[in-house]
Amino acid sequence: MTVTIMLLLSIVISFAAFGYAYWLYLWVKKQPQENKTITKVTGLIQQGARTFLRRQDRILLAFAGGVAVIIFLLLPAPVWTGSFSHNIINAISYIAGTLLSALSGKIGIEVATIANGRSAEAAQKGLKPSFMVGFRGGAVMGMAVVGACVLGVSLVYLITGDTQAVLCFSFGASSLALFAKVGGGIFTKTADIAADLTGKVELGIPEDDPRNPAVIADNVGDNVGDVAGMGADLFDSNVASLAAALVIAFKLDNALGIHTNVLTVFCYAALGLLASLLGVMTAKISKNGNPTSALNSSTYVTTGIYAVLTAIATYLLKISWYVWAACILGLVVGVVIGFTTDYFTDDTKKPVHMVAHASHSGPAFTILSGISYGFLSTMPAMIGTGISTMISYKLCERINPAYAGDYALFGISIAAVGMLSIVGMIVSNDAYGPIVDNARGLAEMGNLGDEVLEITDELDSAGNTVKAITKGFSISAAGLTVIALLGTFMSEVNDAAVELGMDLVKGFDAMNPLVFFGMLVGASIPAVFSAMLMLGVDRNAQRMVEEIHRQFNTIKGLKEGKVDPEYNKCIDIATHGALKELIPAGLVAILTTIIVGFVGGVYAIGGYLVGNILSGLLLSLFMSNAGGLWDNSKKYVEAGNEGGKGSEAHKAAVVGDTVGDPFKDTAGPSINTQITVVSLVASLLSTLFLTMSIFK
Amino acid sequence: MTVTIMLLLSIVISFAAFGYAYWLYLWVKKQPQENKTITKVTGLIQQGARTFLRRQDRILLAFAGGVAVIIFLLLPAPVWTGSFSHNIINAISYIAGTLLSALSGKIGIEVATIANGRSAEAAQKGLKPSFMVGFRGGAVMGMAVVGACVLGVSLVYLITGDTQAVLCFSFGASSLALFAKVGGGIFTKTADIAADLTGKVELGIPEDDPRNPAVIADNVGDNVGDVAGMGADLFDSNVASLAAALVIAFKLDNALGIHTNVLTVFCYAALGLLASLLGVMTAKISKNGNPTSALNSSTYVTTGIYAVLTAIATYLLKISWYVWAACILGLVVGVVIGFTTDYFTDDTKKPVHMVAHASHSGPAFTILSGISYGFLSTMPAMIGTGISTMISYKLCERINPAYAGDYALFGISIAAVGMLSIVGMIVSNDAYGPIVDNARGLAEMGNLGDEVLEITDELDSAGNTVKAITKGFSISAAGLTVIALLGTFMSEVNDAAVELGMDLVKGFDAMNPLVFFGMLVGASIPAVFSAMLMLGVDRNAQRMVEEIHRQFNTIKGLKEGKVDPEYNKCIDIATHGALKELIPAGLVAILTTIIVGFVGGVYAIGGYLVGNILSGLLLSLFMSNAGGLWDNSKKYVEAGNEGGKGSEAHKAAVVGDTVGDPFKDTAGPSINTQITVVSLVASLLSTLFLTMSIFK
Repeated sequence: MTVTIMLLLSIVISFAAFGYAYWLYLWVKKQPQENKTITKVTGLIQQGARTFLRRQDRILLAFAGGVAVIIFLLLPAPVWTGSFSHNIINAISYIAGTLLSALSGKIGIEVATIANGRSAEAAQKGLKPSFMVGFRGGAVMGMAVVGACVLGVSLVYLITGDTQAVLCFSFGASSLALFAKVGGGIFTKTADIAADLTGKVELGIPEDDPRNPAVIADNVGDNVGDVAGMGADLFDSNVASLAAALVIAFKLDNALGIHTNVLTVFCYAALGLLASLLGVMTAKISKNGNPTSALNSSTYVTTGIYAVLTAIATYLLKISWYVWAACILGLVVGVVIGFTTDYFTDDTKKPVHMVAHASHSGPAFTILSGISYGFLSTMPAMIGTGISTMISYKLCERINPAYAGDYALFGISIAAVGMLSIVGMIVSNDAYGPIVDNARGLAEMGNLGDEVLEITDELDSAGNTVKAITKGFSISAAGLTVIALLGTFMSEVNDAAVELGMDLVKGFDAMNPLVFFGMLVGASIPAVFSAMLMLGVDRNAQRMVEEIHRQFNTIKGLKEGKVDPEYNKCIDIATHGALKELIPAGLVAILTTIIVGFVGGVYAIGGYLVGNILSGLLLSLFMSNAGGLWDNSKKYVEAGNEGGKGSEAHKAAVVGDTVGDPFKDTAGPSINTQITVVSLVASLLSTLFLTMSIFK
Repeated sequence: MTVTIMLLLSIVISFAAFGYAYWLYLWVKKQPQENKTITKVTGLIQQGARTFLRRQDRILLAFAGGVAVIIFLLLPAPVWTGSFSHNIINAISYIAGTLLSALSGKIGIEVATIANGRSAEAAQKGLKPSFMVGFRGGAVMGMAVVGACVLGVSLVYLITGDTQAVLCFSFGASSLALFAKVGGGIFTKTADIAADLTGKVELGIPEDDPRNPAVIADNVGDNVGDVAGMGADLFDSNVASLAAALVIAFKLDNALGIHTNVLTVFCYAALGLLASLLGVMTAKISKNGNPTSALNSSTYVTTGIYAVLTAIATYLLKISWYVWAACILGLVVGVVIGFTTDYFTDDTKKPVHMVAHASHSGPAFTILSGISYGFLSTMPAMIGTGISTMISYKLCERINPAYAGDYALFGISIAAVGMLSIVGMIVSNDAYGPIVDNARGLAEMGNLGDEVLEITDELDSAGNTVKAITKGFSISAAGLTVIALLGTFMSEVNDAAVELGMDLVKGFDAMNPLVFFGMLVGASIPAVFSAMLMLGVDRNAQRMVEEIHRQFNTIKGLKEGKVDPEYNKCIDIATHGALKELIPAGLVAILTTIIVGFVGGVYAIGGYLVGNILSGLLLSLFMSNAGGLWDNSKKYVEAGNEGGKGSEAHKAAVVGDTVGDPFKDTAGPSINTQITVVSLVASLLSTLFLTMSIFK
């Protein structure tokens, strides 16, 4: 089979995914929405989400336009040296990456805001219909994200045949993720914290009271951060894993005069999409079935389908079984890591109970025990990632002894592709969470009764459990992807070195002081980046609190509920502040990379990426898991344990949850994006670092 | 000058330090102690500290005995293969390391418990006399620790002429530090938390009320953790830095047929001790002078004296000026890092104010902002360590082009020696802190009046400021030391490789999957280690709380203050629990090292050490600085800012301080010891890892 046919097949499969997503979208939209309050609130949320996206688009346009111009001028070589066509291709690929990522995010938000209310109302008919609305709403996002990824990468490669264009496409996806995931993360926590501080604490009104000007912003935030942000994040990782694998596959194929490896990358990616499609299609729940096992079993089904499909393809296309093994290893390790993560956040397991119990002694102990278990939770995922890197490397270096090193790196990148293969299913399950979470809130606002609330509670709790699993999964996947990107960086450096007649870079030896210097600086970046985001959330929340005070002081009748508050002002503050706070953090990460590169050259940057990956993985696992753990400990106490709602233990658990919110929804998951962005910047600028650094 | 003469000179200087320490001890003891309450409480504290040391000694004896037997049986080669004399030397050196470290800790505690009360009473005569008691009490510890270090290393080398014996001596110091620093850290926070939880929270009695059975344990803890533990920690780092430098110097000298490098190491170490001695002798404070600047200026004086002395020695002994430059670079970077650390914890600077201000919104915001600034604070130290590593390497590789790599590693180790050269001064200043802190408590218990309290408050506050600086300094010094130990590890591996006729290890390339696997596992260890310690503190505090409840329930007249509580029971629980909780944490670190070594061989272990150093430095800086920041924010609020004592902001700040306590006094500083122990285990077992691992 030729690569072209494979690419066309990939494109067909991605269109099938889009088609199915559209069908699901229509199905969700067809579901009845009759309750007036729900309809009104849904409308406000939709409007708010669009406001955020519009404003984000405007800033993004300026940013992406600027970057595109820089790429056009400088990459791969200054445009005035005659490389016009290459440069324009890179710039357009970059823009395509931002646009496709933005598009899939928009689709996801659009359907999520529709599905919220319909899932709430469907709960009146029972658990099954409500679950189906939530699940299919999420699946629209899943299909759109992965469809766009496969389509984009295939198209760029089909048209250009150039892996650097794919890297630029990937960089586009990453820059968007920086805005969508990081900005969305700041947005959602800003609104959440401000609403809580003024509503529950100062005014003593319930969580979702419509008199609170921040309440719509809070609901918008769930969609903006959890749906669009998460989608952009996984789109980014998925594209980056394919880009990393392609760069190495292309190099190998060129050297050996074959096309098997490039074919393999596209084949495995397309089959992943197909498996997710089939997994979503066959997802079922019996009338009063358990939603958690329904979600998990669809993950297993997808994994099984994928293993079988790729085995068949490996046999038919005569791909090395070592490559297949690396791919499946990545997938299995991803699932296993997801489940160990689950242990640390599941409310039937020891950590949640211990943190809830510690809350008896006051908030300090909630925090200390949560941080401790968060630290402990990093070990299985770190070891799992380490093992899959080591084994996939060792397997694939046997394929061709003359190219052992390159095949070994290819093995790691294929493990990342394998881990991310079922990402369509993962995104579906993940987007299900915020939909049913919002459905629960809407059911409360719309007074749908206790029976309905019981159902939406059950669906919500399933969403939380599954979210913990998918989160562990996506951090590890991002980890493996950036390890693969490290290989890409070295490969790009060596391409440039060959062209310039310089010495090849054989590796990044920790005993080389430039590498070690880079490692130390790189390791500090994720800490600094997440600190800046958390401080940003705090500053932004203070701004919104001021606005809420202003509204209560100046709008007459607001306190009595006679007049609607100016919801849009709060949305504006959250939006504006989110983008304002994320830019310095992003700049610190990118500028430090550039400075280290120009000081210490490619060796320092290699070390920098290694340090960045190590501390980034560690901190993002820690923050995400500790956050999830505190969240579920609070819920566990609220379910009547350790004194239940209103007890001192509950108050302490709430403190834990408040600390955990920006941990798990802003800083923790944003680190993924930070690492990917930095890795891609390093790869794209490798020629400059090679030639123009102070130390060599 | 021959090495032997230099060694004898070092020994003479260390005896001078001991002599001066003894003179200071007599001077402190001569100061009047007349107040009855103070005398009684001092006696109880002394007794308690001795109980802890006795029990620790017993467990330590069993542990050290066991390890010594293992060393005797296996190191450097199985004793039954005929290497009897080598093995017995190693075992004895190991035991000497534990004994000397234990001895200097004991001396420090002995004088600290004497100086506490005398410093309090001297405050009745004014600030200057009280300061002098505190300072000279601390200086006894400083002189003893560094004297023991220089004496021990010189003697072991003089007698054996073997660097592996010095490594074993260093390993002995590290094992003791594991007990003294980590065990002491658990002890002190156990007692602190239990005393607070039962006293202030449950019973509503003041912090130092003698009715609380935990109150003496709490005071003992300050001496055990802060004085003995800190001393053992810096003794450990100091010995390890000398051992690392010696291994490389010895190898170089052997290869070149010279003795300059070994001479340099001993010369620079001995001059460091001499400079500290002179610095302590000339330390002065005017009648109503500022104690902070008195402490800091003695540090500058020492630094200056050291620079001049080493310059003269470098000239006379014809040492390379590159080596001198690396040494002074290390020293200057250490001081600079200390001062940037100070920025994040100083109560006149922005971070402390911001955290205090955030406390208005509740404890969750105290925690979030503290964690954020803690993360930010890691960057300057990481970059500083990176720069000093890079420059000292680049400087020293010029010395001899044929041995560029070895000289470069020697440069790094000399930078570590330089950074630790003034450790005598640092320990003096550091031990001053807990003495005046306890003096303050005793002045309160002894009813010495408000004027005295004002003086002791001022002295205490100076202690806190200086402590922040010395803490940043000692973490960076430990960081640079373990980087040097990484070079030692490689050197040991290659010695073994040459003997066995195997390939030399040229470095630890991050692109080698075994190295990367090791890095990922190694990076998770400091997180797991500190989590286990913090959970251990919590468990242990719960045990003590139960005992306090039991005493209040069963001892009649205790609540009314008619009967003394059973203080010793609480001390026993703290002691026993501390040792019980530290052993699993230590075992996890050591066993993981051994497992990784036997699975992935020397490459995996190289990566493991790198990952361990990176995440260890990051986390210990984060935890120590965040802890100090919370502590000072609480004090800042208590000084009347942001609402002052009793306000909501104060309650929130107290939560931050409680979280920060095990951060800064248990987990953060213990990570240093964990890294050193693991590095030494790796170096000592390198031959086994080289020959017996699954992967090569």
